[in-house]
Amino acid sequence: MKGFASDNYSGAHPAVLEAMTAANAEHAVAYGADRWTARAQELLREQFGELAQSYLVFNGTGANVCILRAMCRPWHAVICAASAHVNVDEGGAPEFLVGAKLLDLPTPDGKLTPELVRSAVTRVGDEHAVQARAISISQSTELGTVYTPAEVRALADLAHAHDMYLHVDGARLANAAAALDSDLRVFTTDAGVDAVSFGGTKNGMVFGEAVVLLAPELAEGFPWIRKQSMQLASKGRFAAAQFVALLEDDLWLRSARHANAMGARLARAVSDLPGVRVTQPTQANVVFATIDPAVTPGLQAEWPFYVWDEATGEVRWMCSWDTSPEEVDAFAASIAAAVSVPAGA
Amino acid sequence: MKGFASDNYSGAHPAVLEAMTAANAEHAVAYGADRWTARAQELLREQFGELAQSYLVFNGTGANVCILRAMCRPWHAVICAASAHVNVDEGGAPEFLVGAKLLDLPTPDGKLTPELVRSAVTRVGDEHAVQARAISISQSTELGTVYTPAEVRALADLAHAHDMYLHVDGARLANAAAALDSDLRVFTTDAGVDAVSFGGTKNGMVFGEAVVLLAPELAEGFPWIRKQSMQLASKGRFAAAQFVALLEDDLWLRSARHANAMGARLARAVSDLPGVRVTQPTQANVVFATIDPAVTPGLQAEWPFYVWDEATGEVRWMCSWDTSPEEVDAFAASIAAAVSVPAGA
Amino acid sequence: MKGFASDNYSGAHPAVLEAMTAANAEHAVAYGADRWTARAQELLREQFGELAQSYLVFNGTGANVCILRAMCRPWHAVICAASAHVNVDEGGAPEFLVGAKLLDLPTPDGKLTPELVRSAVTRVGDEHAVQARAISISQSTELGTVYTPAEVRALADLAHAHDMYLHVDGARLANAAAALDSDLRVFTTDAGVDAVSFGGTKNGMVFGEAVVLLAPELAEGFPWIRKQSMQLASKGRFAAAQFVALLEDDLWLRSARHANAMGARLARAVSDLPGVRVTQPTQANVVFATIDPAVTPGLQAEWPFYVWDEATGEVRWMCSWDTSPEEVDAFAASIAAAVSVPAGA
Amino acid sequence: MKGFASDNYSGAHPAVLEAMTAANAEHAVAYGADRWTARAQELLREQFGELAQSYLVFNGTGANVCILRAMCRPWHAVICAASAHVNVDEGGAPEFLVGAKLLDLPTPDGKLTPELVRSAVTRVGDEHAVQARAISISQSTELGTVYTPAEVRALADLAHAHDMYLHVDGARLANAAAALDSDLRVFTTDAGVDAVSFGGTKNGMVFGEAVVLLAPELAEGFPWIRKQSMQLASKGRFAAAQFVALLEDDLWLRSARHANAMGARLARAVSDLPGVRVTQPTQANVVFATIDPAVTPGLQAEWPFYVWDEATGEVRWMCSWDTSPEEVDAFAASIAAAVSVPAGA
Repeated sequence: MKGFASDNYSGAHPAVLEAMTAANAEHAVAYGADRWTARAQELLREQFGELAQSYLVFNGTGANVCILRAMCRPWHAVICAASAHVNVDEGGAPEFLVGAKLLDLPTPDGKLTPELVRSAVTRVGDEHAVQARAISISQSTELGTVYTPAEVRALADLAHAHDMYLHVDGARLANAAAALDSDLRVFTTDAGVDAVSFGGTKNGMVFGEAVVLLAPELAEGFPWIRKQSMQLASKGRFAAAQFVALLEDDLWLRSARHANAMGARLARAVSDLPGVRVTQPTQANVVFATIDPAVTPGLQAEWPFYVWDEATGEVRWMCSWDTSPEEVDAFAASIAAAVSVPAGA
Repeated sequence: MKGFASDNYSGAHPAVLEAMTAANAEHAVAYGADRWTARAQELLREQFGELAQSYLVFNGTGANVCILRAMCRPWHAVICAASAHVNVDEGGAPEFLVGAKLLDLPTPDGKLTPELVRSAVTRVGDEHAVQARAISISQSTELGTVYTPAEVRALADLAHAHDMYLHVDGARLANAAAALDSDLRVFTTDAGVDAVSFGGTKNGMVFGEAVVLLAPELAEGFPWIRKQSMQLASKGRFAAAQFVALLEDDLWLRSARHANAMGARLARAVSDLPGVRVTQPTQANVVFATIDPAVTPGLQAEWPFYVWDEATGEVRWMCSWDTSPEEVDAFAASIAAAVSVPAGA
Repeated sequence: MKGFASDNYSGAHPAVLEAMTAANAEHAVAYGADRWTARAQELLREQFGELAQSYLVFNGTGANVCILRAMCRPWHAVICAASAHVNVDEGGAPEFLVGAKLLDLPTPDGKLTPELVRSAVTRVGDEHAVQARAISISQSTELGTVYTPAEVRALADLAHAHDMYLHVDGARLANAAAALDSDLRVFTTDAGVDAVSFGGTKNGMVFGEAVVLLAPELAEGFPWIRKQSMQLASKGRFAAAQFVALLEDDLWLRSARHANAMGARLARAVSDLPGVRVTQPTQANVVFATIDPAVTPGLQAEWPFYVWDEATGEVRWMCSWDTSPEEVDAFAASIAAAVSVPAGA
Repeated sequence: MKGFASDNYSGAHPAVLEAMTAANAEHAVAYGADRWTARAQELLREQFGELAQSYLVFNGTGANVCILRAMCRPWHAVICAASAHVNVDEGGAPEFLVGAKLLDLPTPDGKLTPELVRSAVTRVGDEHAVQARAISISQSTELGTVYTPAEVRALADLAHAHDMYLHVDGARLANAAAALDSDLRVFTTDAGVDAVSFGGTKNGMVFGEAVVLLAPELAEGFPWIRKQSMQLASKGRFAAAQFVALLEDDLWLRSARHANAMGARLARAVSDLPGVRVTQPTQANVVFATIDPAVTPGLQAEWPFYVWDEATGEVRWMCSWDTSPEEVDAFAASIAAAVSVPAGA
């Protein structure tokens, strides 16, 4: 089974499993005091700068929540896009574990702007109201769009001017780097970001994400936050070995570039079809489009994908590190065939 | 590096990694709606009975906390041994996530008894006091002891007589089965247990534990508990494939039997040494003993292990699925040599 | 000092303090097992029906949060108006203590409608998304509007059809009863409401609110919810005596009718002034209006009141049980004078 | 009804109710920005020193929990006596709201010692274990004993040497001052205490406690902690006026001295009775004693009091600000009569 449902449907890159197998020898100190973890942290410092402090966790929700727990007390608030994963796809974990309110703002493209953020920084110092303490952006966004370094910097400056932190949910940070053709640190560390959830799972790992703390004070207490949030793996070497495999020879970037290229290929192939309207700029590895809802089930039976918005018929076609050009072309052909037939015909 | 520090120091059984690699083909529906998960659940039903409902999670703390969240509201209390992992090694996650108080009771051997439990069931119906709602036992215990099926049943009966649930933290449940030479269900499902954390990591997996719910009402809301507790893996097939590898041909049991045999071999080898006092019955895969604290650092340099109690000089020697008889014998010889030399000589 | 800032600025009705003083004799069993509490509960049953179970608490946030804790688990969500007190004026207590997400919906008049609520009941059964479990409405609303019994019933029916509860934040429930010229139960118990926060403080008490549970299952565990939420007064008779004073001879209703009459009087007096635009129907005890922001500070110096919306210049003029007609007339004259002078003149 | 059940059974001192009535004029700014609150804070600074920052709250659990929330993050632990109110009589509110674990230590007399505390400060820096961050003592204790200033200082020094805070649950702090014949600050501020819950309710108020923060950094965020913990009264003047009444002319101290004197009178009267064994030194306003359990119900019918320990027959006889010498003498006579009759006679 292959399809365009999610980069979580794809498996692990073979090099990742090989690295896990290679790490599976003898004993290693548990809970991250092993050489694979040390190497992963070193490689992450190469990407994010010498001051970057990294902690590996199990999944993306874990990375996001641990970071927000480090940034916020329970009377704080987190400003995010309404479409943000932390807002709609984490089962309320941020509210439950951080205690904080999410101030979620509608956006056309999944991207916060300084103007939007400013509208949510209200009642500062008023004890009756939650106090905005963090801005959380997704890079690339859940809608496949990408912040430029300047856009990130503007949000970071705004955050810091209001005693707030800027968090980047980078479940697909690699895809953003590929899209921007830029080093990771250009649009994170160098742009003023305070902490990053650097995703591994969607980019070819079995499991595992990295919390990368750039504001040093966030590290105070972080080992306990991770442990208490149940995100500390006992056999830490196995998540670390995967990150090493991704980072040591730029596999992370090659995979992301490929996924983005597949997204672009698909967008090109369908954008001129009469029954397809691409609804977001395809900047990363996903295409959003509206098609006749009547043809969706038939297409899904052939190539799994998700309906994004029942009301509008908008669908999401996600490419992955393992999506092949042939699959894209075949899928595009299926789409073309489906939309060319009058519904109900 | 090999040693006797922890079964978390050991790697994964090769069959486990092979199963993960074999599962790494094509796409699979994310979040557990895949055939490996279905197969793991089927195999768990074979072990725990047709009504057992299983949910895979990342780690042992996750399994324990999710189950206690299903059993308790925040004004409830959990009765456990003072030495229980939930009490001393989970960074306060149970208190933080369940909200409940742990009523921890000192025991000589890590095992609760009905008499001990009864002493903690007080002030029933008093709104000023937390209300005992769950009993949590570890099987095998953190001290390497094992509850008999009759002992479990007595605690289950007591729990149910007081409108409480019985939870088994089975991070080393396999070692208990090996020790009792018994099917898992004999001392869980058939003994009245309501939910089990069935450990995989310590028994040769890369990561992963199974929540096994035996009281059907505990399953209500459980998918949200797991998700909100950040214990839902996106690429669910990889944890599942490991469980399938363990369960399909009794690898879980063979590994546990081996680890127990190594524990027994070590206990036999050191129990008659003049400078060694074995402090707990060696029923599973671990030996507790007191030795002259002066010889401990030298021994640890050769064979890593943990001091259990600084005050008494008690040490813990843990065997694993991958501990070899030769290593046990060599370690025993090192111990014998160390304790035979007068300290400071 | 008198003014139109808040019904929390007003003192207690003299009869309330007299009742407290009268209750101050000899000893009484603590924590609510006293005859004043029993009498208050009896009087509340007269208002809300024989099955109403009442618990007195300290303040309105306490009442709301305790009820929502009874209705929801942490993965649930509460649907409310964006202007709801629970959403914007409780310092994040609902998120922190219930754990749940508030799904807050913009409204023109502070009132939820079935259509609005339906838009927020999404992804039912999806473990990645919080599950809507309660609707919380304010009666009268924070904008001074009032739900009709039929409107409440429609929301209750919708709630129950989706396995949700309907909560009424009745910090100003008395004003709604006065506005509707209706018994309390007509638009609560008889309209399908599941639990009510029945306010005392804003209606002439020193402190104290009543939680009134109408769905019997919500009472399970409620004593612990109240205690653990730190809302159980030790000298329970004093809150109870106040409620008895309010309820025994309809003081609650007379006070609310008076406050509403003052609101209406003020609305009439200012509604035809050229520089004043009344922005909400004045159905209870508060007038919302836009005036030239330049005149606001001068008016506030004379008669304290709050600016509701800095951006639009909207102000809130709240009447209370102790607002006199003369004060209303004098305030209206001040307003008239202020708005008739060209700003900057 | 009068008796020896609890100082929560007693009413309010008439001067307290008069002060509330006197404060009931005109309007006052809500939520504590009123002149009564300012005056109470000034009087509290006179007691606890110029740097003392005070916040009024509803009840003792509220005061304790708010302070512990200011001191601790959820992975911290609070060291307290097993008999502490925070441990056994707050419905699990500390665990639920602070998130932290209570490390409760058995004591013979309700008093922590440096030696006991040291035993609980373990595994510092170990991410798997909660980290002790606060010591909480009750003064006077739940067992009627009193810490000397030197004893408090020793605990404060120990706390600060380990980066911990010292909290005093002073629900009966006035009784300790009376017992020590000492200014409040001698055994709080001057002894190194970081925060005090200064009780009002048990000492003749209707409701209300004062949080007194002595370590200045604890005040950061405290207004939000109080609000979010649902401990901020809207009509703040009424709690404040009560504190002013207590503090302005030393009513707090006279009342506590009286209650203590009644405790001492009762202890003297019963200590030589053959069937009575006083089990704790009577240093404050309460007598603990063992009597023949068979006579307890008869005595309770005449004079309400509580059994402290069902197992041993230990009872608690609490005196209050309103206990009269005549009541003490009559109660002592009843006890004498009861215990002189052979049980079952």
